[in-house]
Amino acid sequence: MNRTEKYINHVIQEAILNIENNGGPFGAIIVLNNKIISTGVNSVTLDNDPTAHAEINAIRKAAKTLGKFDLTGCILYSSCEPCPMCLSAIYWAHINKVYYASNRDDAHNAGFDDQFIYYELDKPIKDRKIPFENIYRDKAAIIFEKWKNKIDKTLY
Amino acid sequence: MNRTEKYINHVIQEAILNIENNGGPFGAIIVLNNKIISTGVNSVTLDNDPTAHAEINAIRKAAKTLGKFDLTGCILYSSCEPCPMCLSAIYWAHINKVYYASNRDDAHNAGFDDQFIYYELDKPIKDRKIPFENIYRDKAAIIFEKWKNKIDKTLY
Repeated sequence: MNRTEKYINHVIQEAILNIENNGGPFGAIIVLNNKIISTGVNSVTLDNDPTAHAEINAIRKAAKTLGKFDLTGCILYSSCEPCPMCLSAIYWAHINKVYYASNRDDAHNAGFDDQFIYYELDKPIKDRKIPFENIYRDKAAIIFEKWKNKIDKTLY
Repeated sequence: MNRTEKYINHVIQEAILNIENNGGPFGAIIVLNNKIISTGVNSVTLDNDPTAHAEINAIRKAAKTLGKFDLTGCILYSSCEPCPMCLSAIYWAHINKVYYASNRDDAHNAGFDDQFIYYELDKPIKDRKIPFENIYRDKAAIIFEKWKNKIDKTLY
């Protein structure tokens, strides 16, 4: 069995175990230099945290373990195609590659509506199901002014 | 001053305070029944957590405070237009409405490349900057089988 297959088997087992533990049916791991540095399972309902998807949990743990917010060099294995939230988190974390087993159609058939969010992201803001309203933009300009003028800031 | 203006002033102040505390230039609050139930600021660099955007932090805290993962009825105020990660989290959390002040262009001009992730989300998987590879899909089918067959599961 090659490494990729071994890691996918691992996330599948994590997902199954998480169902048995009353969590959601998703598991993910993050691998750096052929070593698993974090495991995440979907704990949305267990932790009352709508952001606690397997990939987000794995990313948060890996960053904590490494003591840095940039996961360049890391590979993420997920039991399922990442939803738009997790996909964006993968970009923010600078993960190098993602392997996933089930896809968004499989997730949809199991009752998870990632596709709906992909559609919403594509829409002009005014057509979205959740109204997003831009207000007092001028008032907020001072924030980025202060940010740009801060000399000792940590960029990311 | 009306309520909306008051809340936007509040998130602007949170963002400015967070810059002074060496965090990122973003603040958000969640309001339920005209009461602020959580505040979040961007703590990516402070907490070494690439997912710790202001909106994500505010959502996690609000869900914890209310003891539930569904934030139906809540309104989110953010100092800046939510990035795709936060926007997706807003959908998963079932937030009813979002008000934001700075927009994605302002964020881009301040060095935050949300727009890049919006573009990436729109691309076919094979054209993305980070490679996403679908493997061993058949092996993972057992996960959603087990999920569908579980009688006492908590849906979300």
